[in-house]
Amino acid sequence: MAVKYELIKVCKQSGARLGRLHTPHGTIDTPVFMPVGTQATVKAMSPEELKEMGAGIILGNTYHLFLRPGYDIVREAGGLHGFMNWDRAILTDSGGFQVFSLSDLREITEEGVSFRSHLSGEKLFISPEKSIEIQNALGADIIMAFDECPPYPADREYVRASTERTARWAERCLKAHQRPDEQALFGIVQGGMYQDLREESARQLTALDFPGYAVGGLSVGEPKDLMYEVLEYTTPLLPADKPRYLMGVGSPDALIEGVIRGIDMFDCVLPTRIARNGTTMTSQGRIVIRNAKYARDFTPLDPECDCYTCRNYTRAYLRHLIKADEIFGLRLTTYHNLYFLLNMMKQVRQAIAEDRLLDFRDAFFEKYYGANQGRGF
Amino acid sequence: MAVKYELIKVCKQSGARLGRLHTPHGTIDTPVFMPVGTQATVKAMSPEELKEMGAGIILGNTYHLFLRPGYDIVREAGGLHGFMNWDRAILTDSGGFQVFSLSDLREITEEGVSFRSHLSGEKLFISPEKSIEIQNALGADIIMAFDECPPYPADREYVRASTERTARWAERCLKAHQRPDEQALFGIVQGGMYQDLREESARQLTALDFPGYAVGGLSVGEPKDLMYEVLEYTTPLLPADKPRYLMGVGSPDALIEGVIRGIDMFDCVLPTRIARNGTTMTSQGRIVIRNAKYARDFTPLDPECDCYTCRNYTRAYLRHLIKADEIFGLRLTTYHNLYFLLNMMKQVRQAIAEDRLLDFRDAFFEKYYGANQGRGF
Ligand SMILES: [Zn+2]
Ligand SMILES: [Zn+2]
Repeated sequence: MAVKYELIKVCKQSGARLGRLHTPHGTIDTPVFMPVGTQATVKAMSPEELKEMGAGIILGNTYHLFLRPGYDIVREAGGLHGFMNWDRAILTDSGGFQVFSLSDLREITEEGVSFRSHLSGEKLFISPEKSIEIQNALGADIIMAFDECPPYPADREYVRASTERTARWAERCLKAHQRPDEQALFGIVQGGMYQDLREESARQLTALDFPGYAVGGLSVGEPKDLMYEVLEYTTPLLPADKPRYLMGVGSPDALIEGVIRGIDMFDCVLPTRIARNGTTMTSQGRIVIRNAKYARDFTPLDPECDCYTCRNYTRAYLRHLIKADEIFGLRLTTYHNLYFLLNMMKQVRQAIAEDRLLDFRDAFFEKYYGANQGRGF
Repeated sequence: MAVKYELIKVCKQSGARLGRLHTPHGTIDTPVFMPVGTQATVKAMSPEELKEMGAGIILGNTYHLFLRPGYDIVREAGGLHGFMNWDRAILTDSGGFQVFSLSDLREITEEGVSFRSHLSGEKLFISPEKSIEIQNALGADIIMAFDECPPYPADREYVRASTERTARWAERCLKAHQRPDEQALFGIVQGGMYQDLREESARQLTALDFPGYAVGGLSVGEPKDLMYEVLEYTTPLLPADKPRYLMGVGSPDALIEGVIRGIDMFDCVLPTRIARNGTTMTSQGRIVIRNAKYARDFTPLDPECDCYTCRNYTRAYLRHLIKADEIFGLRLTTYHNLYFLLNMMKQVRQAIAEDRLLDFRDAFFEKYYGANQGRGF
């Protein structure tokens, strides 16, 4: 088996899991946040910087890499690890989510999805078999079953039919998978916001005995409380000896609440995307560094942070760089935001180890969000 | 005196100078190429990367920093060194060149230049005294006299009047300079493409005993042979115990030809600007990495280069990143281009030390330009 999950302990206060994920490219402490490297690069970062900040696993996006540079080129380069010079773990998504959210004129059949490239307009087709063929070529340590992620809101009948198709596709993905000893194929539980459909999906997927499971179809626009509710009844349906992955979640509140509900792995473009616009996450909450009030602020971005950015540069300098559209500004804010989340997850793991994750959550939220009850990032 | 030039030897074959520039922020081996950090950052690079590639001195642009973030902010940050976290040497230009090339509605009088900011449209004024006030606040190790750089071509009468005004302005700059013990103010010889005006300008400027001299008004669109000709009769007019700086030159041919004509210092945005468009300078000549022929080229950008980019990444990966507009692509091409020029200058210094710079030039040009007689970058 390519990837093995080791459950170390469960937090007595919260039920959160502390674990280790053993992969062909290193062991990762969980719960873990995975930076997103859509196009074979985590935007603005070097592999060395990612290592320095403690990232053990990053994401690649199958849809994007399928379109550009093409998976044959990545395969010839020795897979994503060789192509992008990253020797730690990689996870690729199935391409499903981007096919539905980015491409034009998509048409879903039992066989797969026809769509037009959002780059070239070219007509393309991805089936479960094709997604796995691409992901086998990309060579990530963890690959994902090709699923449909229903929108929110979606009516019950639509979600039911989609969830059943996702289960049939999952089985086809398993059969198509050519490299199970090197790449762990995770199944994705769907079912929208309907408890019985989630239960049915979990039953079908766990019967296929995947080495790991994602909870899909969340973080698609639904209220956070609804997402937490779905997690509460879904994660207990998943086997305790397999890792659980919540896709597309990266705000501090949702990460911690997700961990409390039994999730081990998360990914999101949020920290890198907002960084490029000059929005940063700090121990005192969000800071929009473009704001005029930072023009003469010669203190570090986050006085409690010991990242490269905060050790060496001031808010005034960051503001100047971002206002002047300087690449180094994006580098510095991106570095800090990723470091902030990775460091937060480290504190989360420590809190689980010491059975005090609920206390940690309350203290963290108080400091980060203050009176901002809406939370978010 | 803030900056002292030490002439080590003159190449017996070419007449080129090998020297050392002692500054308050370190000693620099000359001839030297100085990367340009227009807005208090060398585009896409970190200070650590610049040090790693061997940069000992970088440029800042007074005009840009005057507009944004403003020189009061940089002064409060402890000058450019503190603001951008760079502890090696810095040179700032006078702002004159950008006022003439970038701003709108400029009007030159004996007092100075009125112009509108190309960013905000705000009406501004820079005089020799103002330029020095700004540069004193920015705190670079080497600062430049405020001059007018006449366009090419320009008629003799215009250049004569302009050159005389530049001489009067140079004297005002010297008087206005408040920090001569920490910052060396260089004079700028003008005179266009007219030998007698160059001689007159050199006479006037050297009489003021600046600690260094720039040859201004070149690399403004004139043919390269004309630039070399002007250099040939201008540099011998400058004192041998002072450094000589040729502004705005960064192509391999012009750097080497400039060194042969007695120049010690160069700066240019060329290597960083072309890098962002995917054009690179290699030991085999220019490579436009976007080209389709590199899509499956898994060799290093420059097989003879040992820079970070060439040690770790392939042409196929660089092409992908640049085509996909990924910031890391610009980082890698920028790093390589700067390293290439810094390394070339190192070889130039070695060749001077061994009295074989003309041989080095011929071999380098043969390999870099091949049959491309036009040269350039
Ligand atoms: Zn930080
Ligand atoms: Zn290189």
